[in-house]
Parts: sequence; structure tokens; C-alpha cells
Amino acid sequence: MAPGYGQKHCPVARALDIIGEKWSLLILRDLVRNGPQRFQELEQRLPGVAPNTLSARLKWLEAQGVIATRLYERHPPRYEYLLTEKGEALRPVLKALYSWGERHA
Amino acid sequence: MAPGYGQKHCPVARALDIIGEKWSLLILRDLVRNGPQRFQELEQRLPGVAPNTLSARLKWLEAQGVIATRLYERHPPRYEYLLTEKGEALRPVLKALYSWGERHA
Repeated sequence: MAPGYGQKHCPVARALDIIGEKWSLLILRDLVRNGPQRFQELEQRLPGVAPNTLSARLKWLEAQGVIATRLYERHPPRYEYLLTEKGEALRPVLKALYSWGERHA
Repeated sequence: MAPGYGQKHCPVARALDIIGEKWSLLILRDLVRNGPQRFQELEQRLPGVAPNTLSARLKWLEAQGVIATRLYERHPPRYEYLLTEKGEALRPVLKALYSWGERHA
């Protein structure tokens, strides 16, 4: 049997396990394009996303090491989200999606 | 307000509206890698996919002009799925995902 999705032998399948969800990819697009963002900024740039969905996606991407949080205000504590090195390495994926979307979508 | 997902100004968002779903991208990966495939072949290569999910994704991708069907047997009529030119143009996206997955996932 050919290695397939279930076996996790395929790098595409493994990549999609981490970032293969529309909101996740759009969050990463915004961080690539605009640099570190606060929750409210991301929310404004992603009209239609439910706050609890955005929150869940951010937590997931952080747990996967693709993004990190940084304290930008102490009282009250407020955080911004930024790409890690692993997240920055997704730039070619987003660039390829952009090119395809521009031409074909 | 910055153009966001809802406005559809962004090519990444438009691209994800068409292919931003894990099974869709894995179907396209298989067609890129293995050429035209029958339903059963795709099903075998995507363990864990429900037949009705696979069927729905194939119909959707065909409606978007990313894949096409071709009759390979007349009695009974049987079809195989293949990439259109628009689908072939996704190769760089899958290549970028492969490279990232290989290194980071």
C-alpha cells in the first residue's frame, strides 16, 4: 500500500496537520504581511472569524511552535502574536498561494 | 479598514476559498504525484477519508475548474479524475508545502 495521509510519511500531510485549515493560514498570512499583531488587530483583519475560533487557532499554532506570544503591556497583561522561525519558513507557501490566487482564483 | 478575508481582495483568501481544506489539498497532492486517478485509488491513498467526503470534495474541485473527469470505461460508465491547467498550476503550492513539511513538520 502506498504511503498515504494516515501513515504520516508524506511531508504535505504532516504540514497540513499543522496549518491545513483556512483560518490558520489566514492568520499566518497576516503575521507574514503585517508583523506582530494583537488579538484585536487579527480579529479586524479577519472579518467573519468568531473570537473563540481565532483564540483556538492561535493557541494551536502556538502549541505547534509556528507562532509565539510576547507581552506588550504589563497592567493589564496584554500579548501580541508573532511568527517563530518555523512560522517564518512558511513564507514560500503563502507566496505560492498568493501567486496562484492572483492568477486563478 | 485593511482589505481582509471577507472582502476577497486578497489572493491568498481567494485561493483558500477554493483549496483551503485538508482533504482537497491531499487530493490535489495525489493527482500531482500520481497523475489521473480513479475514485477507489484516491480512497486507498487517503486512509481515513469518508467516501461521501471524498465525493463531495471531488465535486467541489471539479466545479471550481481545478480538476476534471474523464470516462475510462463505458459499460458500466467509470470515471477518473485529473488536474486541469488551473490545477496543474498548484504544483508550486504543493512543492512549498512539501519542503516546509519535510523540514518543520
